[in-house]
Amino acid sequence: MTSQTSPNSTARADGRAVNELRPISITRGWSQNAEGSALIEFGNTRVLCTASLTEGVPRWLRGEGRGWVTAEYAMLPRATNTRSAREAVKGKIGGRTHEISRLIGRSLRAVIDMDALGENTVVLDCDVLQADGGTRTAAITGAYVALADAIAWAQREGIVHRRKSPLTDSVAAVSVGIIDGVPVLDLPYVEDVRAETDMNVVVTGSGSFVEVQGTAEGAPFDRDELNSLLDLALEGTAELAAIQRSTLEEGE
Amino acid sequence: MTSQTSPNSTARADGRAVNELRPISITRGWSQNAEGSALIEFGNTRVLCTASLTEGVPRWLRGEGRGWVTAEYAMLPRATNTRSAREAVKGKIGGRTHEISRLIGRSLRAVIDMDALGENTVVLDCDVLQADGGTRTAAITGAYVALADAIAWAQREGIVHRRKSPLTDSVAAVSVGIIDGVPVLDLPYVEDVRAETDMNVVVTGSGSFVEVQGTAEGAPFDRDELNSLLDLALEGTAELAAIQRSTLEEGE
Amino acid sequence: MTSQTSPNSTARADGRAVNELRPISITRGWSQNAEGSALIEFGNTRVLCTASLTEGVPRWLRGEGRGWVTAEYAMLPRATNTRSAREAVKGKIGGRTHEISRLIGRSLRAVIDMDALGENTVVLDCDVLQADGGTRTAAITGAYVALADAIAWAQREGIVHRRKSPLTDSVAAVSVGIIDGVPVLDLPYVEDVRAETDMNVVVTGSGSFVEVQGTAEGAPFDRDELNSLLDLALEGTAELAAIQRSTLEEGE
Amino acid sequence: MTSQTSPNSTARADGRAVNELRPISITRGWSQNAEGSALIEFGNTRVLCTASLTEGVPRWLRGEGRGWVTAEYAMLPRATNTRSAREAVKGKIGGRTHEISRLIGRSLRAVIDMDALGENTVVLDCDVLQADGGTRTAAITGAYVALADAIAWAQREGIVHRRKSPLTDSVAAVSVGIIDGVPVLDLPYVEDVRAETDMNVVVTGSGSFVEVQGTAEGAPFDRDELNSLLDLALEGTAELAAIQRSTLEEGE
Amino acid sequence: MTSQTSPNSTARADGRAVNELRPISITRGWSQNAEGSALIEFGNTRVLCTASLTEGVPRWLRGEGRGWVTAEYAMLPRATNTRSAREAVKGKIGGRTHEISRLIGRSLRAVIDMDALGENTVVLDCDVLQADGGTRTAAITGAYVALADAIAWAQREGIVHRRKSPLTDSVAAVSVGIIDGVPVLDLPYVEDVRAETDMNVVVTGSGSFVEVQGTAEGAPFDRDELNSLLDLALEGTAELAAIQRSTLEEGE
Amino acid sequence: MTSQTSPNSTARADGRAVNELRPISITRGWSQNAEGSALIEFGNTRVLCTASLTEGVPRWLRGEGRGWVTAEYAMLPRATNTRSAREAVKGKIGGRTHEISRLIGRSLRAVIDMDALGENTVVLDCDVLQADGGTRTAAITGAYVALADAIAWAQREGIVHRRKSPLTDSVAAVSVGIIDGVPVLDLPYVEDVRAETDMNVVVTGSGSFVEVQGTAEGAPFDRDELNSLLDLALEGTAELAAIQRSTLEEGE
Repeated sequence: MTSQTSPNSTARADGRAVNELRPISITRGWSQNAEGSALIEFGNTRVLCTASLTEGVPRWLRGEGRGWVTAEYAMLPRATNTRSAREAVKGKIGGRTHEISRLIGRSLRAVIDMDALGENTVVLDCDVLQADGGTRTAAITGAYVALADAIAWAQREGIVHRRKSPLTDSVAAVSVGIIDGVPVLDLPYVEDVRAETDMNVVVTGSGSFVEVQGTAEGAPFDRDELNSLLDLALEGTAELAAIQRSTLEEGE
Repeated sequence: MTSQTSPNSTARADGRAVNELRPISITRGWSQNAEGSALIEFGNTRVLCTASLTEGVPRWLRGEGRGWVTAEYAMLPRATNTRSAREAVKGKIGGRTHEISRLIGRSLRAVIDMDALGENTVVLDCDVLQADGGTRTAAITGAYVALADAIAWAQREGIVHRRKSPLTDSVAAVSVGIIDGVPVLDLPYVEDVRAETDMNVVVTGSGSFVEVQGTAEGAPFDRDELNSLLDLALEGTAELAAIQRSTLEEGE
Repeated sequence: MTSQTSPNSTARADGRAVNELRPISITRGWSQNAEGSALIEFGNTRVLCTASLTEGVPRWLRGEGRGWVTAEYAMLPRATNTRSAREAVKGKIGGRTHEISRLIGRSLRAVIDMDALGENTVVLDCDVLQADGGTRTAAITGAYVALADAIAWAQREGIVHRRKSPLTDSVAAVSVGIIDGVPVLDLPYVEDVRAETDMNVVVTGSGSFVEVQGTAEGAPFDRDELNSLLDLALEGTAELAAIQRSTLEEGE
Repeated sequence: MTSQTSPNSTARADGRAVNELRPISITRGWSQNAEGSALIEFGNTRVLCTASLTEGVPRWLRGEGRGWVTAEYAMLPRATNTRSAREAVKGKIGGRTHEISRLIGRSLRAVIDMDALGENTVVLDCDVLQADGGTRTAAITGAYVALADAIAWAQREGIVHRRKSPLTDSVAAVSVGIIDGVPVLDLPYVEDVRAETDMNVVVTGSGSFVEVQGTAEGAPFDRDELNSLLDLALEGTAELAAIQRSTLEEGE
Repeated sequence: MTSQTSPNSTARADGRAVNELRPISITRGWSQNAEGSALIEFGNTRVLCTASLTEGVPRWLRGEGRGWVTAEYAMLPRATNTRSAREAVKGKIGGRTHEISRLIGRSLRAVIDMDALGENTVVLDCDVLQADGGTRTAAITGAYVALADAIAWAQREGIVHRRKSPLTDSVAAVSVGIIDGVPVLDLPYVEDVRAETDMNVVVTGSGSFVEVQGTAEGAPFDRDELNSLLDLALEGTAELAAIQRSTLEEGE
Repeated sequence: MTSQTSPNSTARADGRAVNELRPISITRGWSQNAEGSALIEFGNTRVLCTASLTEGVPRWLRGEGRGWVTAEYAMLPRATNTRSAREAVKGKIGGRTHEISRLIGRSLRAVIDMDALGENTVVLDCDVLQADGGTRTAAITGAYVALADAIAWAQREGIVHRRKSPLTDSVAAVSVGIIDGVPVLDLPYVEDVRAETDMNVVVTGSGSFVEVQGTAEGAPFDRDELNSLLDLALEGTAELAAIQRSTLEEGE
């Protein structure tokens, strides 16, 4: 047995085991103006998630008695190591931004009963204040907390039924990847750029898949590698779900 | 045993078995001006793929002796059942278009040796002339044929080394999904809108994964369902790889 | 008499007489989703024309009982010999594209009785799949066929009165130009770039002018040259009108 | 003989004969900053034309020893009877603006010897300060005067050869149209909206055509009508050429 | 006492005293189509101001019985010594343009009683035809005249109450600055680029401040300098108010 | 004497004296990736300021041996009480954003010796995470701290001369306004919307003015009111300068 395949291997730059998450921190209510908010940290990755809940739905949904949840992801220009131009200055949103916004929206919609939400809209804004890999998975995980708080607020206000929560489950996400042939969990930037395969997995609190997005950055990957990555992801998201749960219980 | 779970079930609207592709047609050289081109049809889905190979690379790659491959996907306004506004008229490219363009580019880059390509650039344009589900998978499958022809042309012209092809493998893609609990292969539009889970899988000619993108549109999916979908996808892409091979052999 | 001025001159690169059209082909119904469609070819120029007919009119026309017909022209990036950037990527439509879209729209509106069309809108999309000169004239000629089919469909559906067609005439277009002092009909790209004067003429089936757009690319032209060009254009469009007629009769 | 067909008919709202121009006024040097400028008036239509001559040419022309002339047309928001939104505010230039800018550029290039101009660029800005029909023809006619002055300036400065003017001829433009079946010259707005056929004709000082753009706004037009319109246009542009000549002689 | 601090100093390039305005000219009704208009000149700076008054207000103001006044500022490309690209061509409005448009709008709203205006909207377009410093202050001063005329028109038409003018005061603006330590009034371009401090002051006819915008371009300025600049500005705007008054009285 | 005019008046909603700042907090180095950063809080207003220092200058400054400092201001969509659309989504930057970005840039440039900075560029990004009035003044005050740290870093790295700091002074800003006739310091949102006059004042550490921007939102203001506002602003910025100084001394 080589140390590389050991789950307790210390070959990672930050000394973590291959199946170990970075330190996770979730600060609920960081933003006072939003109906729900959370500042989430996956190690040095720091994302501010706000949930804006308003009555009414977009025109194409009106009169159907159902709600809508959508998301927008963005990165501050100096969240990263070198500054990037603002998308507002460039006058258009890049493909990567679009792609991640859509992923976050789909992930959250998977745990919402739109009929129970009623004709209300939630916009989840996930702004990366500091980036060190895994920003989209931190965003999904934090957005769930903001969403849960916004819905609790709407229930207290009587905008949403007090007894019947539109939340059907929780949802969290984590990245996994293969580095030097070894599957590892929750990649920071230095690992991310070296990974041969990179996968983002979105999983419900009850352990089912919402999204599986795996990409061969270097060599294509085989079925066994895929299975190892999915194992790691299920382990990591279960841990994140527990953190979400205890965070949300605190305020009660 | 219900007929629905049988692999030979005829419950699909077009009478196909669950593991059966739609009729596939690839017309090489459909466009005379491009270095490589293919009009590919997956049933009623019809995509024109052209490969434009030019000497030189983008500024950020210059002087490294390596090439570049990128892709742009678009849909004619009336490719679909109801007309959509042109992205050029709206003045911006939508998130879905960006996402698919990026997927096609990554998929093709996975089977190219950039050093062997040398300082040359290939742009793959995939324009959907008629859409009936699976446009992105048809685009990838057809773009490979256009790319192979463009590279063969560059080898004949002496732009790329005649003996050492930059192509390391072939690549093809197919959609799979779960409908009424049954995993099926290659979904046309009517099935796509009903699918609980929708997955696009990109596989090399030698059977390794390049991309796995699965999304729960309805209920989240479990590990067994994921495995069934991957089985179907490997079966389908193997068949597509064989069609690509015979298409490319024809002209020789 | 010099061979150059002879109508049977073989001085043209493709051996045509000065008053001879390129091989013309019109494939009706090439696109299954549109109410009307035609793939038209003027030699190697290939344009896909679709007619999308929907009930209702733009806001500024509502309540007047009259219809609306408009057109959008575009070129695939690799329709031409060297690839051009997509207008959607550039985020704006170029002047040439605008100009041609407007010309096509005006040309088709000239043969439509808007009162008979009723409060319905037809959008003609003309996408150049392959370009070899004369794309705007091929687009007009093909768009007429798509429009005629869309209107026939609307009459069958009872959206437009079955007895009173909104079509008042047919319309076709052709380019003419002066090369080395000789007026010629239907210029492919190699002739177009050499022409001293370039003219696009749009003519109804009954032989009246809808548009005459002549431009001196090199030396200004005199009244006699203008007259010769108009003669050629009337001859060419009469032939195109006959082809349109027989194409539309086929399906009956 | 009806009064309508008489060239001295007073049926026009402003009492002009059918072949009579509106009062024409050209103020040279209206703008002090430009190398050449002219405020031109065709009746109430008022266009400020400036010619900006700079050394150097666009990148695609460098090193060929030839010059470049281009034009931009625009309208102040309240040049017209009701205010239109600024194109800068809308963030894009409309089709009509593009079309006219291109027409002005082509018209002026027709009377310039680019080799004699040398590697210098002239940009003609034609801004409509007040609009009452015929703005594009006034713009061409005024832009010629601004161009001539800019070239004279460049010759005095030694930027362009003092003995060999790049101007090969003068150029002017006028609109003609058919109203109630009668061909008339130089249409103000009230006539323009009523015209069945509308034609803009650009003619050199020596009487050759640079552009002929005729459009059937209502019924298509026949060969005889076309000929009458061309006769009127040649008459009108000859008069404008004489006014340009005397205006340019004044300052000498 | 040094000549520099003397109010009659002739140290300025154009020989003016430090507290002397450039020659001011206001031509009312320069534009026939607008409800009010003025061509204003501050020396060589020339701005065309039009006021477009229409019934109705923007959606967000409807039903409140109050009016709206807004402004748009722009510069012709060759208003300046070297040509700048059109904002419409660039597809976006620059920060400076935005800033000035907003300043003009606020300045004019300060002298309007929105209740007395009723549900009517005035758009002030200020287009700089020739620029030589102070374009924004000329624009405000001229826009007031155009606005006054548009309101007088609306009163004559009965759109606005004939007895109760919505104008509560007049408004004018002037630039002041410190050059070589000396505060001066109404800076032309040559002075503007040399000024250490640049201030634009908007003052009502009755002598109160509407806007004070001072910027240290070079060294920061102290309280005494600020006071001297404000003194000069009050002197200059009082003179401008008198010119506005006599201009508006002329037509009565 | 009324309690309103007393400097110790408790008439403000948050109980502050008229000349009292909100609680000010500056967290240096909040962002690990930037060369300098500060999270600044003026009460509930929270702005993240980062300074990105890179070698080299924009093209138009090259070869002059001088540096460049610029700023970009933006607000997260849910920084405010109701969510606003992202400027990146709208595809353009609003006038207010432009105006504030320019103000911040000018303010910081006023305390930089560009020759001492050398050919280096600093971009100051000021992103409002939570807004409660005074965001632009907090941004300037925080940006100074980020800038000072970035310059200290560049001096340690030897990019900028170790002995000769390009900082010539410090700079801070505060808002002042007149509410119910009483001049007050540092307005939160609830006061801002009620203010008759609103002024932003930028002052150096040594007490000179960099910018004075006063606007009459309601009634115009007179000279005495202006003087009272300036007094308050000088008092407030002196306090902010002291806080900046002690913050920057901490890390030493």
